Amino acid sequence: MEWKNFDQLEAYGKLGSLSPVDVKTVMAGESGVKRVAEYKIPMACGMLYSYAAKAVDDTVLDVLQGLADEAELTAKYEELYNGAVINTGEKRLVLHQLTRGQLGKDVIADGVNKREFYVGQQKRAAEFANKVHAGEILNEAGEKYTTAVQIGIGGSDLGPRALYLSLENWAKVNNTLKMEAKFISNVDPDDASAVLASVDVAHTIFVLVSKSGTTLETLTNESFVKDALSKAGLDPSKHMVAVTSETSPLAGNPDYLDSFYMDDYIGGRYSSSSAVGGVILSLAFGPEVFARILKGAAEEDVLAKNPDIRKNAALMDALIGVYERNFLGYGETAVLPYSQGLSRFPAHLQQLDMESNGKSVNRFGEPVNYSTGPVIFGEPGTNGQHSFYQLLHQGTDIVPLQFVGFKKNQIGNDVVIQGSTSQQKLSANVAAQIMAFACGKDDENPNKYFKGGRPSSIIVGDQLVPETLGALLAHFENKVMFQGFVWNLNSFDQEGVQLGKVLAKKVLAKDTDGALTAYSEMLEIF
Amino acid sequence: MEWKNFDQLEAYGKLGSLSPVDVKTVMAGESGVKRVAEYKIPMACGMLYSYAAKAVDDTVLDVLQGLADEAELTAKYEELYNGAVINTGEKRLVLHQLTRGQLGKDVIADGVNKREFYVGQQKRAAEFANKVHAGEILNEAGEKYTTAVQIGIGGSDLGPRALYLSLENWAKVNNTLKMEAKFISNVDPDDASAVLASVDVAHTIFVLVSKSGTTLETLTNESFVKDALSKAGLDPSKHMVAVTSETSPLAGNPDYLDSFYMDDYIGGRYSSSSAVGGVILSLAFGPEVFARILKGAAEEDVLAKNPDIRKNAALMDALIGVYERNFLGYGETAVLPYSQGLSRFPAHLQQLDMESNGKSVNRFGEPVNYSTGPVIFGEPGTNGQHSFYQLLHQGTDIVPLQFVGFKKNQIGNDVVIQGSTSQQKLSANVAAQIMAFACGKDDENPNKYFKGGRPSSIIVGDQLVPETLGALLAHFENKVMFQGFVWNLNSFDQEGVQLGKVLAKKVLAKDTDGALTAYSEMLEIF
Repeated sequence: MEWKNFDQLEAYGKLGSLSPVDVKTVMAGESGVKRVAEYKIPMACGMLYSYAAKAVDDTVLDVLQGLADEAELTAKYEELYNGAVINTGEKRLVLHQLTRGQLGKDVIADGVNKREFYVGQQKRAAEFANKVHAGEILNEAGEKYTTAVQIGIGGSDLGPRALYLSLENWAKVNNTLKMEAKFISNVDPDDASAVLASVDVAHTIFVLVSKSGTTLETLTNESFVKDALSKAGLDPSKHMVAVTSETSPLAGNPDYLDSFYMDDYIGGRYSSSSAVGGVILSLAFGPEVFARILKGAAEEDVLAKNPDIRKNAALMDALIGVYERNFLGYGETAVLPYSQGLSRFPAHLQQLDMESNGKSVNRFGEPVNYSTGPVIFGEPGTNGQHSFYQLLHQGTDIVPLQFVGFKKNQIGNDVVIQGSTSQQKLSANVAAQIMAFACGKDDENPNKYFKGGRPSSIIVGDQLVPETLGALLAHFENKVMFQGFVWNLNSFDQEGVQLGKVLAKKVLAKDTDGALTAYSEMLEIF
Repeated sequence: MEWKNFDQLEAYGKLGSLSPVDVKTVMAGESGVKRVAEYKIPMACGMLYSYAAKAVDDTVLDVLQGLADEAELTAKYEELYNGAVINTGEKRLVLHQLTRGQLGKDVIADGVNKREFYVGQQKRAAEFANKVHAGEILNEAGEKYTTAVQIGIGGSDLGPRALYLSLENWAKVNNTLKMEAKFISNVDPDDASAVLASVDVAHTIFVLVSKSGTTLETLTNESFVKDALSKAGLDPSKHMVAVTSETSPLAGNPDYLDSFYMDDYIGGRYSSSSAVGGVILSLAFGPEVFARILKGAAEEDVLAKNPDIRKNAALMDALIGVYERNFLGYGETAVLPYSQGLSRFPAHLQQLDMESNGKSVNRFGEPVNYSTGPVIFGEPGTNGQHSFYQLLHQGTDIVPLQFVGFKKNQIGNDVVIQGSTSQQKLSANVAAQIMAFACGKDDENPNKYFKGGRPSSIIVGDQLVPETLGALLAHFENKVMFQGFVWNLNSFDQEGVQLGKVLAKKVLAKDTDGALTAYSEMLEIF
């Protein structure tokens, strides 16, 4: 296995010498119809990835296939799931796919079969959740718990929160919302105060999530919550479970009802399918629903093994993104789900992508000479259409677009207005937007002229249910992984978050000088 | 008054020939202390705008002052608030500042004194809200309303929603939360279904907001809600008010409890201080709180009149942003409020900025040859620190940062952990981040090396209360306006949203061909 910088590959030069594909031209008329029919890849759970409206053609795709082959992208994926030390900076394995399936060999680390370890934790979480739901684990007053509140930040918050919100309404309709879930993350005390005011603490289980057991924001919020519990005359140890690593100070601590474990081989932003997501989602929806999420993710992970880019949606998505970033010069990607349930999914992808690949050094710690991860942002359509789409359509820069759409909504209530249902309007809008961005519109009035040529892809599914959600999650995790391989990055550490932590501690210790002192005074911290 | 393209100005050439300021160098040591002391501008309500950590020095600032003078920026503002036809595309006045104060001459349009018209509507909304709160307006069963739900999209949603969330917890603590507010925006029927399931419709007033009275998403959601009301045996006309223009089909319609008016001179994304925000916020918090928001905004509007850029925060912010965009080559701006209350403020600013200045033609409809509005995104700190800050610190591109911080939180509950309160930790983090971004950190290990040189500004206030919130709102509105003047854009239309609407209607009418048909089939719209 060779780990070369992107610009050392033969494919790099070839990509640079390609003639750009004019999206406006190729998406017009019969050519467009042909592309929509051909440029699509089946995904797990009946979904498909369509890249017809991207600035690629068979010539570009052949070069991208050459890049995938030369950079040994699927072989590197194989290395990863077979337990190589892919996280070079921290010298760790990268095993989040193992939380949902076994893709290759048994991975034995620290004397343990890791797949068995993760499955064991899932079983423990499932049993715990079942007991809570069945009333076998009760509060001090012998009453059932009704609410679960996750305390975590970053990967211990964004992914699980996005998944919960994705299925909350679906679960209500399908009578599988066992407990309402809420989330506390920000160290701003107003966050915890507001969540606490909105729940019945006597009937709430708090799920404290910190891999290291030392995340300052999370421990602060834990104390905040324990304070509130004590003031309400409740016993904090009857209202809190921990999700952490086995070596953390939170592990097996009698201050918690129970503890569930992940390990150092699960990066925070890749931890939704581990106990980090598993405990809260099993409590909220029941373990069966969480298992269905894992099933969808596992299916997608298997599809990502295919070395043929035309049959591997995550790999294709990754490669097109690299081409856009390094050769078409696009600095951002907008994620635009046409599904209200995915309202916070872009925020999760923002962390997943930007924290993984927002780096300037390669996996060996050497500076790279090419652009890496783009800025990711997004809001659900149709809301975005009435907001920032103006810039996407007529701004001076081109922003590649990642649409997501479903044939059916989750709740099923609908109404016919002006001859169509809301769901039809929603889907009509996403279809219309793809074509508006691709082909634009001529107009004598330059103010009403749409240049077009703005590339997009779309993932289409039948409905947002646990399986398709899991598949979506895995798709993007694997896309980011493949891009990291191309850029020769370590996508699994995050050294860039350390300096701020160090300086914040200095401020709190009053150990500052220069402008840091001046800003501290401006903010009247003391 | 001359309206020239930016690149026709003398200052354009001068800006291009400036030597770049190295943020890392100037923010170190005593130089940094001096900059923090000097590079700040008082804002309304005791707030301040600090631009010490931006890539400017006195030389750059002098050229920016020259730009402001040459482009007659404050004179153009004066034109605007005195009632000139600034919205050239739609041939409209631009009067949102008039909803909160009179900055210049009386503006008479359509035979009406516009300031009096807006104030009149505020009084009507206040009276209506007071009657609802006092139980003088009751539901069919003679009971009080407890909840208000806004139905709107884009500017009728994002601004009012951001303002509501900004003050919801403050209002609870200060016993001025009169009614809980919720928002329905997306045409995805799951949005309306979920909100309806979360409220007691029998005691809910729906505030239907559409200037034209023809916004398809909003009318669809209105029907959805009316359907639900009817099915619950309720009379929709007893549960709905309209906010619209006087010429819309919704005006004075007996299907509503009452109607409140704005007009074509209030752009959607600038409408929070009109009846669009006024009705829902007066219902939620009481009219006095809404008046306090307006007071803060009005104070900030007055400060924006100052032609001295060193005394005009909105103007300075605008000019530095232009310099970053056109001469330093930065394509994005991240908005990072260290206040949980401002959780959706970035989404509002995203629309405000990107819909206003995401354009490729000037105000006369002629193409421009320079970059215009950047991509805006953001999440509250400290959450963002554990998410996308990795890329901001160590990514290959530089993203300018706009921090917002407050000395006090809103709710006032706090807890001391490891020797400091949560509020101290929150403020310590924002101070630390500014310096980490500016000065970076040397390290032998390139993976732990922070290059620094990443510019930021911060707005600091005492506390997020109605006045400071209003001032913040106006600051960004005025910043965007000034940038539009520099780029010679019409920041007040949004032709870029039209094409998608037209194509969506074609899909719904089954009047499609080519790839649009193919995508419609893929999504199984029919």
